[in-house]
Amino acid sequence: MVLEFQITSHKRNEMINIDEFLIRALEEQKIESGIALIFCPHTTAGITINENGDPDVQRDLLYLWEKLSPHYQEYRHFEGNSDAHGKSSIIGCSETVIIAGGRPIFGTWQSLYFCEFDGPRHRKFYIKLMGD
Amino acid sequence: MVLEFQITSHKRNEMINIDEFLIRALEEQKIESGIALIFCPHTTAGITINENGDPDVQRDLLYLWEKLSPHYQEYRHFEGNSDAHGKSSIIGCSETVIIAGGRPIFGTWQSLYFCEFDGPRHRKFYIKLMGD
Amino acid sequence: MVLEFQITSHKRNEMINIDEFLIRALEEQKIESGIALIFCPHTTAGITINENGDPDVQRDLLYLWEKLSPHYQEYRHFEGNSDAHGKSSIIGCSETVIIAGGRPIFGTWQSLYFCEFDGPRHRKFYIKLMGD
Repeated sequence: MVLEFQITSHKRNEMINIDEFLIRALEEQKIESGIALIFCPHTTAGITINENGDPDVQRDLLYLWEKLSPHYQEYRHFEGNSDAHGKSSIIGCSETVIIAGGRPIFGTWQSLYFCEFDGPRHRKFYIKLMGD
Repeated sequence: MVLEFQITSHKRNEMINIDEFLIRALEEQKIESGIALIFCPHTTAGITINENGDPDVQRDLLYLWEKLSPHYQEYRHFEGNSDAHGKSSIIGCSETVIIAGGRPIFGTWQSLYFCEFDGPRHRKFYIKLMGD
Repeated sequence: MVLEFQITSHKRNEMINIDEFLIRALEEQKIESGIALIFCPHTTAGITINENGDPDVQRDLLYLWEKLSPHYQEYRHFEGNSDAHGKSSIIGCSETVIIAGGRPIFGTWQSLYFCEFDGPRHRKFYIKLMGD
């Protein structure tokens, strides 16, 4: 079974913590051990895992991603959002995590983030659990 | 079972849509539900998921990747293609996707791409299906 | 079952070949066929797959990653290591590989690397095997 979740972004570029959705998926499907694939079906957004302690890390990451994938004058895509497609290809559209004891095995400072690169918008993502 | 597919690139940098290979793998192995791992065994190529609508997005992505990983004079690798190794490490050598109803769960605009960074060459990639 | 491995990095930025740990995990768990998820629980490190032939490729990759994610004066994270968090988000904190015949299906030049971006430190990573 595939679980679908809806979220709303409020800025053009934004990191949204989605740990709670993964926890909910694990509770609903009662998977004790295995892996979870968190997959974003959008081409101007992504999924990453990074620090959840100091919120300035998220601010700094968003700053970096703009440096890495700015809007280039040479871009030809008619929608004008190739910078967002570029960020998606750098960060990637999924993460796979380990499940043990009914919980994701994250490091102390790790959280799962939906990365919006072309908001604000209504977005969705999928979680697929594979038990041992 | 692991499926191996052959493709040929025609430029130094190129995105090749490989959706049809994944569809074929699913039809051959009759997997209804699970995940698929698409893996590139080359270190100067990669696998990504991005937009399949306007072909200018692919053009813009290839432009961006050249900006991100140009040939630096300081490089020492004797083959002179460290820019291609760099692109591979940024984009990544695999994607994992969700399978449901015998089909990959892609967003409307998503397709799977083999990314050539050091062509033209004969290349291969693997697809591994894991059923529920 | 999840296997945990310890390593020690000796520089701020370093690529550490961890192929042997994956081989050991496969031998211990006697998985013949399936997939392996190699997961780094740190937010200033990552996992990648790239060339194991000429060591200058690793040197060139470390050079590139510094170009991609330097220390920006605009960064606000109080620990001062946002460049390392940035590298982690670009390279990613995991890789998934195919297992067949009890071995990882790598290309001739591919190896698995733990990427240290904020060393020297004691680090760990996990390997999760999923059999067919």
